[in-house]
Amino acid sequence: MINVIDFINTNRDRYVRELKDYLAIPSISALPEHQADMKRCAEWTGAEMTRVGLENVRLVKTPGNPVVYGDWLHAEGAPTILFYGHYDVQPVDPLDLWETPPFEATVRDGEIYARGAADDKGQVFMHFKAIEAHMKQNGRLPVNLKVIIEGEEEVGSNNLDDFIRANKAQLGADVVVISDSAMFERGIPSICYGLRGLTYFQIDLRGSNSDLHSGVFGGSVANPAMVLAQMLAQMRDKGGRIKIPGFYDDVRELTTEERAEWRKLPWSDTRYRKELGAPKLFGETGYTTNERRWGRPTFEVNGLLSGFTGEGAKTVLPATAMAKVSMRLVPDQHPDKIAALFEEYVRKVAPKTVELKVTRMHGGKPWMADFDNSFVRAAGRAIEQGFGKAPVFCREGGSIPVVSTFQEELGIPSVLFGVGLPDENAHAPNEKLDLANFHGGIVSAAILYQEIASR
Amino acid sequence: MINVIDFINTNRDRYVRELKDYLAIPSISALPEHQADMKRCAEWTGAEMTRVGLENVRLVKTPGNPVVYGDWLHAEGAPTILFYGHYDVQPVDPLDLWETPPFEATVRDGEIYARGAADDKGQVFMHFKAIEAHMKQNGRLPVNLKVIIEGEEEVGSNNLDDFIRANKAQLGADVVVISDSAMFERGIPSICYGLRGLTYFQIDLRGSNSDLHSGVFGGSVANPAMVLAQMLAQMRDKGGRIKIPGFYDDVRELTTEERAEWRKLPWSDTRYRKELGAPKLFGETGYTTNERRWGRPTFEVNGLLSGFTGEGAKTVLPATAMAKVSMRLVPDQHPDKIAALFEEYVRKVAPKTVELKVTRMHGGKPWMADFDNSFVRAAGRAIEQGFGKAPVFCREGGSIPVVSTFQEELGIPSVLFGVGLPDENAHAPNEKLDLANFHGGIVSAAILYQEIASR
Repeated sequence: MINVIDFINTNRDRYVRELKDYLAIPSISALPEHQADMKRCAEWTGAEMTRVGLENVRLVKTPGNPVVYGDWLHAEGAPTILFYGHYDVQPVDPLDLWETPPFEATVRDGEIYARGAADDKGQVFMHFKAIEAHMKQNGRLPVNLKVIIEGEEEVGSNNLDDFIRANKAQLGADVVVISDSAMFERGIPSICYGLRGLTYFQIDLRGSNSDLHSGVFGGSVANPAMVLAQMLAQMRDKGGRIKIPGFYDDVRELTTEERAEWRKLPWSDTRYRKELGAPKLFGETGYTTNERRWGRPTFEVNGLLSGFTGEGAKTVLPATAMAKVSMRLVPDQHPDKIAALFEEYVRKVAPKTVELKVTRMHGGKPWMADFDNSFVRAAGRAIEQGFGKAPVFCREGGSIPVVSTFQEELGIPSVLFGVGLPDENAHAPNEKLDLANFHGGIVSAAILYQEIASR
Repeated sequence: MINVIDFINTNRDRYVRELKDYLAIPSISALPEHQADMKRCAEWTGAEMTRVGLENVRLVKTPGNPVVYGDWLHAEGAPTILFYGHYDVQPVDPLDLWETPPFEATVRDGEIYARGAADDKGQVFMHFKAIEAHMKQNGRLPVNLKVIIEGEEEVGSNNLDDFIRANKAQLGADVVVISDSAMFERGIPSICYGLRGLTYFQIDLRGSNSDLHSGVFGGSVANPAMVLAQMLAQMRDKGGRIKIPGFYDDVRELTTEERAEWRKLPWSDTRYRKELGAPKLFGETGYTTNERRWGRPTFEVNGLLSGFTGEGAKTVLPATAMAKVSMRLVPDQHPDKIAALFEEYVRKVAPKTVELKVTRMHGGKPWMADFDNSFVRAAGRAIEQGFGKAPVFCREGGSIPVVSTFQEELGIPSVLFGVGLPDENAHAPNEKLDLANFHGGIVSAAILYQEIASR
C-alpha cells in the first residue's frame, strides 16, 4: 500500500486540476435546459473511468439521464465492491450570492468552491483517483470493483431503481460503498449509519381565472396566497410537531443508547446557530439539535410563489399560489405511505374556495445500517489510517434513497464513507470541498479497497 | 350643446386612433426600469392637453414622476372644475396571460385591450376629447377647468399630497371630477359615492445566512417560508374576520338603508362567481358580496416569494421569505392607525427564530361623499343624457386616496364619474375598455361641464 499512498501524495496538484474540469460541466438535473450538459457530463465521467483503468465502461440509457457503468473484475477470490455516486448537481440559484461562478471552480484558503464540489463530483472523483493509484502502481486492484455513477440523484433517482432491477445479476456485490455525505465536523471523520428518507410535493392553488384588482374584488373571493398560508400553517404546530394524522405511526423512536452516544459528540448549539446565522434555533420540542437533524422527521416548505413579487407595490389579488414542500422521513416511515397521508390531509385542509392540485415530485426511503458487520469495521480502519483519527459513528439528515434500493433489491449492505463537511453548502450558494479532506479521502478510499480485501 | 355632441359623434374613429398612441407608452410607475417611459408619458400628456386647447400646460417636478398641469380659466362667473387623473399604469406580469401585447392596443369586439385602457388613460382621454369638442365648436368651455394628471397613482400617489399642499391657492376649485372607477355593471351607469382606503406592506423574514440543505439542517432551524405562512394565517380567521387587535374599532357599520339600497341592484352571486372563475365565493360571514367589496375592510396577500420556485424539485431550506400584504380600509379607519396596529401585531406574531423586516409601502384614506349636493345631481343628469339611462348610486372597493386629500387640504368635494366596467381587468392581464362606454363617457363629460355651469 505504501507505493499507492506515495503516488497519491505526489499527485495532489494534478488531482485538483482535473477535478476543476469535472466541476466545470453544469450538470443540473432539475433544469430541462441543461439536458445537453447532462450528456456531456456522463461522457466525461465515462472517459475518466476508462482513463483510471476501469473496463467495460458504458453509458446506459434510461428514460432520463444515462447511468455510467464500469468495472474491474480480476481479483479472483476477493470481495466485490459496488461503488455508487452521482454526476448531477443541484441548481445554483440564487446566483448572485455566489462569490465566484458556480461552474468555474476556484481554490480559496484550502477549499475548492464550485457546485458539485462536495455533492457529489468531488467525492466521486476521490474514488477515481484511488482506483488510478492502485492501477498505476500495481496494475491491479485488491478487490473486484463495479462502479455506477448516475445523473438523477438530485431529482429523486427516478430511473435508477429500474436500472438496478434490470441489472440485478450484473450488479451483484458484497458491499456498496458511497461517498456522498459529510463528516460530523471538521477534524472528526465519521461513518454514517443512518439516513433520512424524503417525499416531495408541489401544491398549486387557483382561486380565479386571472389576477384580480384587490380593491374591486378583495373581500369577496378567496385569496389563494392566504389560503396556502392557512393550509401550510396546519401542517405543523408551534412545537414543531407535524399535524398530518398518522404521520408518526411508524417512526422508530431513538433509543436511550443512541441518544447517549450522540450527546458525547463535541457540539455547541451556540456555535451552530452562529454558523448558520440564525437568530434562534428551532425544532421539535424534547429533542436535541442532532436528534432533530438525524433522528426525527420534518415538514419543510422549500419554495413559495404567488402574485406580485417584484420591487414596489401592486394591489393584486393573485389568481394562483404555489408551494413546494417536502418531508424528511426516518425509519420505519415509508415514503409511499406518508405521501398518501399527506395527500389526504392536504385535500382535507383545502377549502372549496380554491382549486387544488397536488403533484408528487419524488421520494426515497430512510435507511439505517446494521453495524455488526466487517465492512463497516474495514471502513473505520481505512478512515483511521487516511485521516489519522478513529471515526465517530453518526447519522445524516439527508437522503440517499438508493441505499435502501441496494439493500432491498440486491440484498447488499452499504458503507457510507463521506468526507464532506457540514458547512460546505451542498445545496446552497458557495458549495465547497476542503482539499485536505479531498486528499485524505483519496488515501482512505485506496486503503478501504485493501481493507475490504483483507477484512 | 348639440354642436359639441355632433362633433364628438363624428370623431369616434379618430379618438380610438389617438388613444392607441397614448396606450403605447409603458408608463409602469412601480418598476424603476420604466423611468424614461414615465417622463415620455408625462410629455405626451402635456402635449395632448395643449392640443385640445388647455393653457399654461406644464410638467411640475416632484421627487418622483412629474405632475402634468394645465387650465382654461376664461369662464368668468362660472364654477371651476378641478379634473384629476393619472397617466401611470399597473405592471403587466404575468405577461404570458395577455392575448395581445399590453402596450399595443388592440380592438376586439368593441373593446380596446391594453394596459391603462380603463385605468386610467382611457378615462383621462375621454375628458381631453370632451374639452377638445367644446373648444373646437365654441372656442371656449362653459366652466373654468384645472387639470392635474399625476404619474404615481398606482404606487400610492406619494408626492401628490405635497404638490397639492404646495399649490393650494392655484388649485382652488368648486368641485373635483375624477373618472377612475367602474360602472356597477355593463348597461348600468353609476355614480360612485364611496371608496375604500389602503395600507400596503412588505414583510421580509430571514432565518439563516444562506439557503440550507433541507436534509442536513431540516428540523433544527426555523424555515422562514413556514414561519411566514404561520404568521399570515394568524391575520384572518376562517370566517374572513381580520384578527389584528383593534382593526375594526373605527369601522363605520353599514346602515340598514344602505344595505337595502344595494340589495335592490341587479346581482347574481352565481354569475359573479362564474365570471371570476372561482370554485366558490368567499368573504366575511354575515355580509353580501357587494357589502364585502364596498363596505367592509380586507386583509389580502398580494405576493409571496421564498426558496426554489422553478420547475422540478430542490430540497432547499430557504434563508428568506417575503410577502406583500395590504389592507383595504373603510370609513372611518385611518391608514396610519391601521398601519401601526398591523406593525405591532406582525411583530407580536413573529417568532424570535427569524429576523423580521416590515416595510410600509403606501396607503390612502377611505372616502365617502356627502350626497346632498348639486354637483352630484349635475353628474347624474350628465350621465343620464350621455348613456340614456339614470345612474345608480354605489360604492367602489378600490382606493383613490387623493379624493380624501382634496377634501381635507382644499375643502373641495369630489364627483366620481367612472365609465369602466367591473370585468375590465384593471390590475390584471387583458385590461380593456368598452368603446361604447368610452364614447358615452366623452359625451357625458362634455355635458357635465355644461351641467355644472348651469346647475
